[in-house]
Amino acid sequence: MEGLCSIVRKDTKIGIRDLTETVELEALAQEMSGLMSRLYPICRSITGNGLRETLAIIKNYIPLTVNEIPTGTKVFDWTVPKEWNINDAYVKNSKGERVIDFRKSNLHVMGYSIPVHTKMSLSELKKHLHTLPDHPHWIPYRTSYYKESWGFCLSHNQFNELEEDIYEVCINSTLEDGHLTYGEYYLKGNSSKEILISCHACHPSLCNDNLSGIILSTLLGRHLNPLSLNYSYRIIFIPATIGAITWLSQNETQVSHIKHGLVAACVGDSGQFTYKRSRIGTAEIDVTVEHVLKHSGNSFKVVDFSPYGYDERQYCSPGFNLPIGSLQRTTHGQYLEYHTSADNCDFVRSEYLIDSFKMYLSVINVLENNKKYISKNQKCEPQLGKRGLYTAVGGDSHTNLDQMALLWVINLSDGKHTLLDIAERSGKEFNLIKEAADALHRCDLLDEFHG
Amino acid sequence: MEGLCSIVRKDTKIGIRDLTETVELEALAQEMSGLMSRLYPICRSITGNGLRETLAIIKNYIPLTVNEIPTGTKVFDWTVPKEWNINDAYVKNSKGERVIDFRKSNLHVMGYSIPVHTKMSLSELKKHLHTLPDHPHWIPYRTSYYKESWGFCLSHNQFNELEEDIYEVCINSTLEDGHLTYGEYYLKGNSSKEILISCHACHPSLCNDNLSGIILSTLLGRHLNPLSLNYSYRIIFIPATIGAITWLSQNETQVSHIKHGLVAACVGDSGQFTYKRSRIGTAEIDVTVEHVLKHSGNSFKVVDFSPYGYDERQYCSPGFNLPIGSLQRTTHGQYLEYHTSADNCDFVRSEYLIDSFKMYLSVINVLENNKKYISKNQKCEPQLGKRGLYTAVGGDSHTNLDQMALLWVINLSDGKHTLLDIAERSGKEFNLIKEAADALHRCDLLDEFHG
Amino acid sequence: MEGLCSIVRKDTKIGIRDLTETVELEALAQEMSGLMSRLYPICRSITGNGLRETLAIIKNYIPLTVNEIPTGTKVFDWTVPKEWNINDAYVKNSKGERVIDFRKSNLHVMGYSIPVHTKMSLSELKKHLHTLPDHPHWIPYRTSYYKESWGFCLSHNQFNELEEDIYEVCINSTLEDGHLTYGEYYLKGNSSKEILISCHACHPSLCNDNLSGIILSTLLGRHLNPLSLNYSYRIIFIPATIGAITWLSQNETQVSHIKHGLVAACVGDSGQFTYKRSRIGTAEIDVTVEHVLKHSGNSFKVVDFSPYGYDERQYCSPGFNLPIGSLQRTTHGQYLEYHTSADNCDFVRSEYLIDSFKMYLSVINVLENNKKYISKNQKCEPQLGKRGLYTAVGGDSHTNLDQMALLWVINLSDGKHTLLDIAERSGKEFNLIKEAADALHRCDLLDEFHG
Repeated sequence: MEGLCSIVRKDTKIGIRDLTETVELEALAQEMSGLMSRLYPICRSITGNGLRETLAIIKNYIPLTVNEIPTGTKVFDWTVPKEWNINDAYVKNSKGERVIDFRKSNLHVMGYSIPVHTKMSLSELKKHLHTLPDHPHWIPYRTSYYKESWGFCLSHNQFNELEEDIYEVCINSTLEDGHLTYGEYYLKGNSSKEILISCHACHPSLCNDNLSGIILSTLLGRHLNPLSLNYSYRIIFIPATIGAITWLSQNETQVSHIKHGLVAACVGDSGQFTYKRSRIGTAEIDVTVEHVLKHSGNSFKVVDFSPYGYDERQYCSPGFNLPIGSLQRTTHGQYLEYHTSADNCDFVRSEYLIDSFKMYLSVINVLENNKKYISKNQKCEPQLGKRGLYTAVGGDSHTNLDQMALLWVINLSDGKHTLLDIAERSGKEFNLIKEAADALHRCDLLDEFHG
Repeated sequence: MEGLCSIVRKDTKIGIRDLTETVELEALAQEMSGLMSRLYPICRSITGNGLRETLAIIKNYIPLTVNEIPTGTKVFDWTVPKEWNINDAYVKNSKGERVIDFRKSNLHVMGYSIPVHTKMSLSELKKHLHTLPDHPHWIPYRTSYYKESWGFCLSHNQFNELEEDIYEVCINSTLEDGHLTYGEYYLKGNSSKEILISCHACHPSLCNDNLSGIILSTLLGRHLNPLSLNYSYRIIFIPATIGAITWLSQNETQVSHIKHGLVAACVGDSGQFTYKRSRIGTAEIDVTVEHVLKHSGNSFKVVDFSPYGYDERQYCSPGFNLPIGSLQRTTHGQYLEYHTSADNCDFVRSEYLIDSFKMYLSVINVLENNKKYISKNQKCEPQLGKRGLYTAVGGDSHTNLDQMALLWVINLSDGKHTLLDIAERSGKEFNLIKEAADALHRCDLLDEFHG
Repeated sequence: MEGLCSIVRKDTKIGIRDLTETVELEALAQEMSGLMSRLYPICRSITGNGLRETLAIIKNYIPLTVNEIPTGTKVFDWTVPKEWNINDAYVKNSKGERVIDFRKSNLHVMGYSIPVHTKMSLSELKKHLHTLPDHPHWIPYRTSYYKESWGFCLSHNQFNELEEDIYEVCINSTLEDGHLTYGEYYLKGNSSKEILISCHACHPSLCNDNLSGIILSTLLGRHLNPLSLNYSYRIIFIPATIGAITWLSQNETQVSHIKHGLVAACVGDSGQFTYKRSRIGTAEIDVTVEHVLKHSGNSFKVVDFSPYGYDERQYCSPGFNLPIGSLQRTTHGQYLEYHTSADNCDFVRSEYLIDSFKMYLSVINVLENNKKYISKNQKCEPQLGKRGLYTAVGGDSHTNLDQMALLWVINLSDGKHTLLDIAERSGKEFNLIKEAADALHRCDLLDEFHG
């Protein structure tokens, strides 16, 4: 009855526990599917109008601030690149038929391809074609952000059907000075201490990587919005790598407010959860996520930080070393469909998105409620019976869980242990410990401890 | 030849090693059985004459101080309760036959039952009856210390035989202002630092829980009495929970003398040893008991502290956090007979009590002898050969254990390692290390180190 | 291409990597065999001419300083013993036939046997004979350094053939004031910090224990001699125990220069490697050897320090507590042939000596190159692409090892991690990390960090 519920306003329907109500979950699932379908066809990249259009749609859910950083801006060791936009692209055979057609899939064009319009033989063309021979039905996803180049991606089957011919090659793109765009949603809590949720929003029609992360972050933001929260929340939608670097560069002094964070990506597939620890490895976010996963009843994997993956690479660079991990399902590069056309709306299912959404909420629930108390009876146990907290008839060996949780909270509330510490040492789930602490607090047996 | 022997006075028969002499063990075993038979029928509770009578019997073995704390005394968050005494109790059928008879077993009456004398139907009566349907031959043990109530306990078979009738119910008890009684035996050693042995003495006819602990503590006290000991010893016989709280409250300032302690309970059954660590978890008592168990050759279990069980709950409350664990055999609630009439004099056997007694002595042996030395040759080994501590002919690879123990003591006697530390790091049994240290000390190769 | 190569002078043939060139290895193997054959027949002991002759031969390979410490010199708790020399020894039967003949094996005489020339019956003689009944073909190795005595060692078969007779017993030895001899090779590096290699050189015709250590140390010294090294190296050839104690006593103040060290012994048999940790247990030498073994692809064993074995006993006595471990193959006493005539030139093979030689070089390679760097980009990753350190086309999940090594070095070069720390945390082999660091340093992305 406590848990995140205690921070849910009366007029709010979806709390941690309420999620088990089928109707709400079905509505949320449908909403997720709808948002996915709407975002999927957009041709996003690390800059440009696809990204802008995506952020505009997200704005329907949460009051996003959109930032535009000009091309050429120095961001640490990097420079904000030229903005890339694309209208159309194709390869036509001599009959004028589009044998490769950007309108069918935005993966057909290598990201950041420079404009080209020319004719060439098949053998010349082939130098610019990318396929996946091992998965002949799938189109690969390729980019060339920092080296000017152009190319087409297509299935290997399609590639094999290309005949000797003179082909018209057209990429109607622009690569010009412009801006790098990112979106940011800041939700003020009771404290200026922040929890950061970061997702990359630069991939075109790829669903798990990372429409799933965008959808989860968006709806998480909307869910948190009406709640009374202890932490402030910052949810950022950024292009990978250059976006994180740009954001950190623009917010360098403010980063110290971040107390915990998660990089949200690959949260919509059927795989088990994977938690990648922060570089610190033992930060509260690390202990929290592992606690939540351990008590979720699901199988999961925890991996140590490594300097590869998503934007935790930047957040955990030594000069920042932020307590930010990444909670994913099947992690990048570990599923065959990764960075191919098979990472589509069939690969991601709303039941898994919902499951991930609940897991993120559970993590937030622990962080929000992870207080420290001082028992008012440091010497010997207080008498629980006279406060109605103890089964009256002695000799009954069936002590229920709450009874043990009460005793653990009393014994370890010495100003050195948070509720999460107590949960971990006792082996009990956080909410049981929190409920026990709430009961003891109501009975005036605990003081909150700030120190 | 060393070991506890070195602290055994010449006129004392039972030392650690002497225990292997059959005659002494048989005598001790008979004494244990005799004491158990004498204490078993007494109706003990957390206050009252049963407890007083028990302490009076113990006084035949050790010079116990008996303390009486008045009803109403504030002890931390608790209050010393009224004193409970009982003369007789029964349920009679309409023929005047005692169908439940306190004289047959003191478990038949719920502990702290208020006086009652009335008549009632079977259905009325049943609201006050407790049975164990899963063990239909056994009488359960029930109490209601802090809520005024009354009840009878009986076997489920007996319960099933009760017929519709008007029953005369009589509990001839008193619940009035009086005292809480506890016994304390203080044995002065060379140092004012204390080892505490605590056992609860509040259970009526229950044998493992905790006549076994009372018997072991009593005979341990008598065994230690004539010895020349480094530590002072305090052995307390107290009612569980309220007794420990009362004792701590009465001795609050003196508790700092306690350097090590054990709660003695459930030491007479056939199960393997269980050591429950102190809340500290790595205290010398914890390392010592685990060392002794590890080298005992028996299987055993070590469990972490949890704030449930016996009076370690109070000793390990955060405001005291004493280095006190509990060395038991099958621990409370882990055997079916727990808190039933089946925890009787057949369930406990003197061979297991003897075994536990030896284990407690072995622990005391380590604590008594766990000194720190400084080798007089910090740079390079001393020449053992010229002191007769080395096999003269080199090239013999059969170095015996003592040889290695000597080398370990020399190498680690740097003022940072106790003998127990050396035993643990070397993997050797404590007595081997102690014997090596004694030999080196005799050869003037070690200085005792106080620091 | 980096690795120890970077410290190999242009005119030097054998580096870490070059060792894989067959010709060089064959030459080295032949040299090892040759040196072994030359040293094997010499009758070494803890003092005397056999030891001097051995050092004279080593001098052909490395410019050894030979030290002579007079009999009677006090060395900590010990005294330099009398010098022992032997010319001949035999047992002749009544027909004048040598039934035990020192000229056939120097193991036939117990080391440090006092001179004797007399006649005696078989039963008298037997009191002075040592055999190995379990290995009837082998002659045991026995000494009596510190108790004046004499004896012969022989195979049990030979012993069984001795008939009743009057035997002439002759040991033509001297035990007189003289010197204890040891050899020392000091190689000056850029720093005065030293790496110590210590081997005992006091055993007569025993091959693994410890001709193998002598040969490895000698050729390691010759290999390092022409190189430009960061550390200074000290290689000492000493009699076991008394030699180490003497050396430490003579060099007490200088010992603080030793930053790492290894005791070299038993490095020529076919067994797997065994690393015995220093007393410290977590010293850089410990981490280094374990890292090298782990990445060698061979099975190996790591054992904790114990105060028995070779001269690490003295180096790791508490007053020195030096970071010195011992890298052996099958360690002393763990092979049947240990301290018998079966520890001969068939038991040791140059392929294993070569293997050990490479392992020692690999350890030195890590120690020499284990620097600490500071990344010039503490906040966010540097842009590797513009420096040619990144594969240009994104979306390729096949990041090779070097790419990850680069990222690890960048992420952990915060002034707190050495390259070995980075190698251990990343799970990558040291040379991969070193090559990455070298590449980043060349690109001006790292500064060397001294602190």
